[in-house]
Amino acid sequence: MSFFPDVPKISYEGPKSKNSFAFKHYNPDEAIEGKTMREHLRFGAAYWHVMRNELSDPFGGGTALMPWDDKSDSIDNAKKRADVFFEFLEKIDIDYYCFHDRDIAPELGDFTKSTEALQAVTDHLEGLQKDSGRKLLWGTACLFAHPRYAQGAGTSPDARVFAYAAAQVKAAMDATHQLGGEGYTFWGGREGYATLLNTDMKRELDHLAALLHMAVDYKKKIGFTGQFYIEPKPREPSTHQYDSDSAACLNFLREYELLDHFKLNIETNHATLAGHTMQHELTVAMGAGALGSIDANQGDTLLGWDTDQFPTDLYGTTQVMLKVLEMGGFTTGGLNFDAKRRRESHEPIDLFHAHIGGMDAFARGLKIAAAVRADGRMAEFVKNRYSSWDDGIGAVVEKGTDLDTLDQWVRSHGEPELKSGRQEMLENLLNEFI
Amino acid sequence: MSFFPDVPKISYEGPKSKNSFAFKHYNPDEAIEGKTMREHLRFGAAYWHVMRNELSDPFGGGTALMPWDDKSDSIDNAKKRADVFFEFLEKIDIDYYCFHDRDIAPELGDFTKSTEALQAVTDHLEGLQKDSGRKLLWGTACLFAHPRYAQGAGTSPDARVFAYAAAQVKAAMDATHQLGGEGYTFWGGREGYATLLNTDMKRELDHLAALLHMAVDYKKKIGFTGQFYIEPKPREPSTHQYDSDSAACLNFLREYELLDHFKLNIETNHATLAGHTMQHELTVAMGAGALGSIDANQGDTLLGWDTDQFPTDLYGTTQVMLKVLEMGGFTTGGLNFDAKRRRESHEPIDLFHAHIGGMDAFARGLKIAAAVRADGRMAEFVKNRYSSWDDGIGAVVEKGTDLDTLDQWVRSHGEPELKSGRQEMLENLLNEFI
Amino acid sequence: MSFFPDVPKISYEGPKSKNSFAFKHYNPDEAIEGKTMREHLRFGAAYWHVMRNELSDPFGGGTALMPWDDKSDSIDNAKKRADVFFEFLEKIDIDYYCFHDRDIAPELGDFTKSTEALQAVTDHLEGLQKDSGRKLLWGTACLFAHPRYAQGAGTSPDARVFAYAAAQVKAAMDATHQLGGEGYTFWGGREGYATLLNTDMKRELDHLAALLHMAVDYKKKIGFTGQFYIEPKPREPSTHQYDSDSAACLNFLREYELLDHFKLNIETNHATLAGHTMQHELTVAMGAGALGSIDANQGDTLLGWDTDQFPTDLYGTTQVMLKVLEMGGFTTGGLNFDAKRRRESHEPIDLFHAHIGGMDAFARGLKIAAAVRADGRMAEFVKNRYSSWDDGIGAVVEKGTDLDTLDQWVRSHGEPELKSGRQEMLENLLNEFI
Amino acid sequence: MSFFPDVPKISYEGPKSKNSFAFKHYNPDEAIEGKTMREHLRFGAAYWHVMRNELSDPFGGGTALMPWDDKSDSIDNAKKRADVFFEFLEKIDIDYYCFHDRDIAPELGDFTKSTEALQAVTDHLEGLQKDSGRKLLWGTACLFAHPRYAQGAGTSPDARVFAYAAAQVKAAMDATHQLGGEGYTFWGGREGYATLLNTDMKRELDHLAALLHMAVDYKKKIGFTGQFYIEPKPREPSTHQYDSDSAACLNFLREYELLDHFKLNIETNHATLAGHTMQHELTVAMGAGALGSIDANQGDTLLGWDTDQFPTDLYGTTQVMLKVLEMGGFTTGGLNFDAKRRRESHEPIDLFHAHIGGMDAFARGLKIAAAVRADGRMAEFVKNRYSSWDDGIGAVVEKGTDLDTLDQWVRSHGEPELKSGRQEMLENLLNEFI
Repeated sequence: MSFFPDVPKISYEGPKSKNSFAFKHYNPDEAIEGKTMREHLRFGAAYWHVMRNELSDPFGGGTALMPWDDKSDSIDNAKKRADVFFEFLEKIDIDYYCFHDRDIAPELGDFTKSTEALQAVTDHLEGLQKDSGRKLLWGTACLFAHPRYAQGAGTSPDARVFAYAAAQVKAAMDATHQLGGEGYTFWGGREGYATLLNTDMKRELDHLAALLHMAVDYKKKIGFTGQFYIEPKPREPSTHQYDSDSAACLNFLREYELLDHFKLNIETNHATLAGHTMQHELTVAMGAGALGSIDANQGDTLLGWDTDQFPTDLYGTTQVMLKVLEMGGFTTGGLNFDAKRRRESHEPIDLFHAHIGGMDAFARGLKIAAAVRADGRMAEFVKNRYSSWDDGIGAVVEKGTDLDTLDQWVRSHGEPELKSGRQEMLENLLNEFI
Repeated sequence: MSFFPDVPKISYEGPKSKNSFAFKHYNPDEAIEGKTMREHLRFGAAYWHVMRNELSDPFGGGTALMPWDDKSDSIDNAKKRADVFFEFLEKIDIDYYCFHDRDIAPELGDFTKSTEALQAVTDHLEGLQKDSGRKLLWGTACLFAHPRYAQGAGTSPDARVFAYAAAQVKAAMDATHQLGGEGYTFWGGREGYATLLNTDMKRELDHLAALLHMAVDYKKKIGFTGQFYIEPKPREPSTHQYDSDSAACLNFLREYELLDHFKLNIETNHATLAGHTMQHELTVAMGAGALGSIDANQGDTLLGWDTDQFPTDLYGTTQVMLKVLEMGGFTTGGLNFDAKRRRESHEPIDLFHAHIGGMDAFARGLKIAAAVRADGRMAEFVKNRYSSWDDGIGAVVEKGTDLDTLDQWVRSHGEPELKSGRQEMLENLLNEFI
Repeated sequence: MSFFPDVPKISYEGPKSKNSFAFKHYNPDEAIEGKTMREHLRFGAAYWHVMRNELSDPFGGGTALMPWDDKSDSIDNAKKRADVFFEFLEKIDIDYYCFHDRDIAPELGDFTKSTEALQAVTDHLEGLQKDSGRKLLWGTACLFAHPRYAQGAGTSPDARVFAYAAAQVKAAMDATHQLGGEGYTFWGGREGYATLLNTDMKRELDHLAALLHMAVDYKKKIGFTGQFYIEPKPREPSTHQYDSDSAACLNFLREYELLDHFKLNIETNHATLAGHTMQHELTVAMGAGALGSIDANQGDTLLGWDTDQFPTDLYGTTQVMLKVLEMGGFTTGGLNFDAKRRRESHEPIDLFHAHIGGMDAFARGLKIAAAVRADGRMAEFVKNRYSSWDDGIGAVVEKGTDLDTLDQWVRSHGEPELKSGRQEMLENLLNEFI
Repeated sequence: MSFFPDVPKISYEGPKSKNSFAFKHYNPDEAIEGKTMREHLRFGAAYWHVMRNELSDPFGGGTALMPWDDKSDSIDNAKKRADVFFEFLEKIDIDYYCFHDRDIAPELGDFTKSTEALQAVTDHLEGLQKDSGRKLLWGTACLFAHPRYAQGAGTSPDARVFAYAAAQVKAAMDATHQLGGEGYTFWGGREGYATLLNTDMKRELDHLAALLHMAVDYKKKIGFTGQFYIEPKPREPSTHQYDSDSAACLNFLREYELLDHFKLNIETNHATLAGHTMQHELTVAMGAGALGSIDANQGDTLLGWDTDQFPTDLYGTTQVMLKVLEMGGFTTGGLNFDAKRRRESHEPIDLFHAHIGGMDAFARGLKIAAAVRADGRMAEFVKNRYSSWDDGIGAVVEKGTDLDTLDQWVRSHGEPELKSGRQEMLENLLNEFI
């Protein structure tokens, strides 16, 4: 029995295909820079968007058609959703997925019961993974949707809420470990504040660090070897989230001696909400050796909230893939489609259109990025731009010197003459490959 | 002879005065929480805005009337400006000032000559300080206006530009030291990038850190005991500045082991350009023990550039002063009016209106903040909000525990019930004091 | 029986009161410029926020405690809510209210049944109004929440949806008419687009105009004499709403010859989302004789969505009241609190804190505005600023002339010398009254 | 003698060329939809950016190398610049140009002398046009740079400034007429306000309308048949400009009965500063029959000011050309590169890189747009989406009906069932052509 009877298994047909249910660029086994596209891109589907997003918004109710879902909190309904999801993964040819505990299993009003439900669905997912060969990119605990977390989870003013969050993290880590998750993510949507008038920021951050240290300890205890990620986002739902951008996350991790244990999971739409480009956030994370995984989507920079659109802008996907290739590729991370259809795209087949578009856009980004690298002109330009540092006074500075020495050097040399930064030429060069 | 013949010395006349050339709230010797207003507020005037800002904008030329200025690059003209400035300080009753090297003395096309000119004007300023009792809050080097710095100073791709910047920092530190400056500021307006396409961020940041370490060494060498500040700003003039907000600065300072040597100089308009409130930036800096000084102004949050308006919003000045009082007051820092008149306010007396407004607004902010603190209801509310952390499971967490313990605790306790965050009530409470 | 047993009737206690359940500034019968505060301010409460807002957000479920609400779609539950609401109005001392059809009565899956339910609740409200003396400021139809309107109501690509919207407008107008509403509002949250790729803007606008013309005709037919309003908002929930700001609404109304029949209902948070200040939007509307009513709230200009906070900023309320007084006061309009508590303020008494704060802030804004007007310096400055238009070449221009005449005039006159705009002085002057 | 000795005449070499001084896509004589690329695109170069932009910014001086310019205000220098400019036009193969009066000729401190200088340079340009066959797309008067316009030109509070602006418009219209300009543009960078505290908006708008009516009269008088344009921009340099976006301009033109005489000149970066996409602004203007010409550039939506970058984003150029083709092509208008090199791109050859990139990007946009149209799937989808309006109840509404009729229709029909808006599929479809 099929939940998507009208949708074929999506396969590669090449750029000339006019079949909207085919890949035009994502050719999983095509090799680029010595690895297949599949190995490079490591696509993941987000359980919350594919299976649980009803496509409501602050001004209107859900529109998504989910004929398989009886809307109940039963374990059976949860298992059925998992079956639908695995059919989706199979048809769309995505290898990985990501989940929150409360996506896959219901919250039942009592922690013990909720945890039992989580265990039951985890067992079911384990079976589905075995049967299908699909894998878990990362798991996480939803510490933001329930009203108890309205004022924070790890940073709640209420210690009982903190304890609840900690217990939920433990259970979600257990589930992730059982499913062989390659990572575990912390997104702190409520870890911040609505107003500073009622907030003790320092005390809250101390608590958040304590939670993360406990998670590090528990990871060791249970032998979970996946990577921990923190996911930056600046605002929404809070007025301010502490993990607002890559730099804020790194500052926090350094202050609390957690940087050895965490990498970042960076999302395009969160980057732009923070006022940064995605390539900026990736570069900052890479500079600290902390780029772990990517939430692949795109935002509308003229709108002030997380629109979580599917990534179709080829400039965006190219820039991401340039960074990923520069890093030497993902290890535990991947490209998780943290993206939702528009509220007007309420039919199940829109899920396929959306993911096909995102996968093709990243396949093209990968091919373009590889071509830019093979061409070499871009990298050569950058290398030359900094060549004055390779010898002469530049090498003196890089080796270590003092202000007096540089003062003397300047007095005996004329005004430096700059070379053009050639931004326009480089933008044209990039366009040669788009 | 007077350069502001129509302007009297500004003095306190109380809230009922209708004299636009009088303070209605700033009463320098009035005591608040055991210190005078003068000691609390430590106002500084910005040499660049008062004496050098011609009030041009990207679409139009300067409008400011400066009858004393012959527009030449002569030392005499520079000294005359200093005389005008000190008359301004005297009449407006501001004790401190701040400068860039190129504000007070001309850039002369040859580093040695420029440095000699700086020395000559520094000597003149030293005399003016002695005669008037005015003091230097901080000095700095202008590493952004000259075309040589178009692609960066400490982060230039060209090592010769870096050397030039280093030599200029040395000379500006010498001048600051000679004038008894209580601090020295680094604002990296060009330390960032126009496009990542031509930028090696990691190498640039290494160089910037090298420059700052050399400055730390030089400070020791010459016995300068003032405080070093870094000033965050996210964008403008660059596409991105590395010191984009408090968290980014702290992350950088931690990474390069500079946090012991630097504090932050935080500006309201830079905070809002970064998407943060001023009180957020102050709180972040204070949490790291790194709040040093303040550039007092305000922006227009509907405009996307640094409007550098004089601070008149009482909510803003109150929130700043609440933080300053909470910190125990400034040590080396103060409230430097990094603010300019609007381009339409081109007459010299507008300088007085502008500063009077800013000083009165901060005087009211100080009085309101002290009243809020004396009242105690606000602080009491916050204390109670976190009271669950003072004993019980909260105290267990703060002492150190693990996920298993918390899991067990949660299983044996019911759903936590939250108290309201009472944001509206607290906002009303604040309004009682405005 | 009381639904708010712990809350007294809120009354005026004056600025020194520390009672958080008292007005400190809103003294309903105090006269200002010849009218009472009550007559000036004409406060309205929003049924949707007070009774129906569960305080959910895109990342979390509702937190609001509503012990009186059984969550059912029954008429009895709807009537009970109305009873609670009227107790709220009584205790908070607000004379007016506003509603959407679907706030007061359930949507029942069949248009006829929904309309019968609306009739039943309307009858109940009519009784409550008679008993209490409370009045309806305006009514409206909710044409945005139901999934059928996901792609527009009056601008739906589907004519059947348009018909449904039109029928709903008719029923909502009937209810508003029966309740003696002083106005009827159109807010087009879905009248716009998610993407232009699938949109025929011109055809959609033609349909929207057709709907409004039908409403104008129906108004005449049933003898409804209330004022029609259009409410501008630029984005959220759509990517773009056609009624994006005052100018866009006026342009539409002029193009389709509807300007005689509509005024604007302007909301502060919508203004700032459009990149304008509230005083800008009010001034634009007044310039066209089209300022009708006000949705009183405030936004957070650092956040990109409609936070709908209660208005507490005295600068904001002062500027609104300056405009309202300048207009000569409201006729059919008023100050409707289209504002919601923060999600963290989930207790019923937070509704009172929130409204008390907003009412006091507007009472102060009214008193400050009246004081500014009585003082006269502000108005005098503006009058003088334009005095060159009152005679000489200015009067020639205002009377009508041509380019040749002005060319000749300029050739025989020197360079005009500008007077300062004195923005800083005027800001200081305003602060004298805050 | 050549001013760009190292730059060859730029010609088409095709997509495989690696020559950075060649067009890879702009093939002027290649036919698309029955016209050549040259005829479709009607490229214009902006005199102010190419010849007069020194590449300063608010924090630093000009960097641009202009070896031909002696920086004097002499007529000779002005004529020499014109010669350089026409060599530039020749080499880059651009047919049109645009200017402000003060770009081409100096402002000399006396209106009569400035006007004589303008006449002298106009005569020189007339000769250059004849010799080269280049043409004037539009001219304009610079009513924003001189300090006299700091508080407005047509909306100045000072009638003498208004007169000066009017005289300047007359002279600029004369020059444009003499040069056979196909249009004349009004950009009101100072027509707005810095603060509403000192502003009488209604009186200012009346004056602006008077100026435009005088220009309409003068146009008739001198027989100038070019098109008048208004150019929208929301802010910068002012706090608010009255011509803030297309809707605001249209509203103004309708109110003052000027819509028959003006079209809009729409700029991409101004659109995004107003919070709109370029395609939105174009669609709004086309809906009113008022799309005249385009200022071709692109902004950085993460920066809050007019970065005026050269257009290289293929999505942007495609969307513009889809609209232009839909309109049936330009008549008097064209694609004027109102774009400047980055401040770091200070060498003359960067001018060529920049324009080549923009021209190639628009050539590709044109080819892509034509391909999308030839394919037809996009247009077909939109047509079908609105098909319910073509008969049945939709046709009834379009013909004219009333609320009662629609109420009855709804009662006898079930709930409408929506078709998906298919945004993701359409975005994928667009990507097929990029």
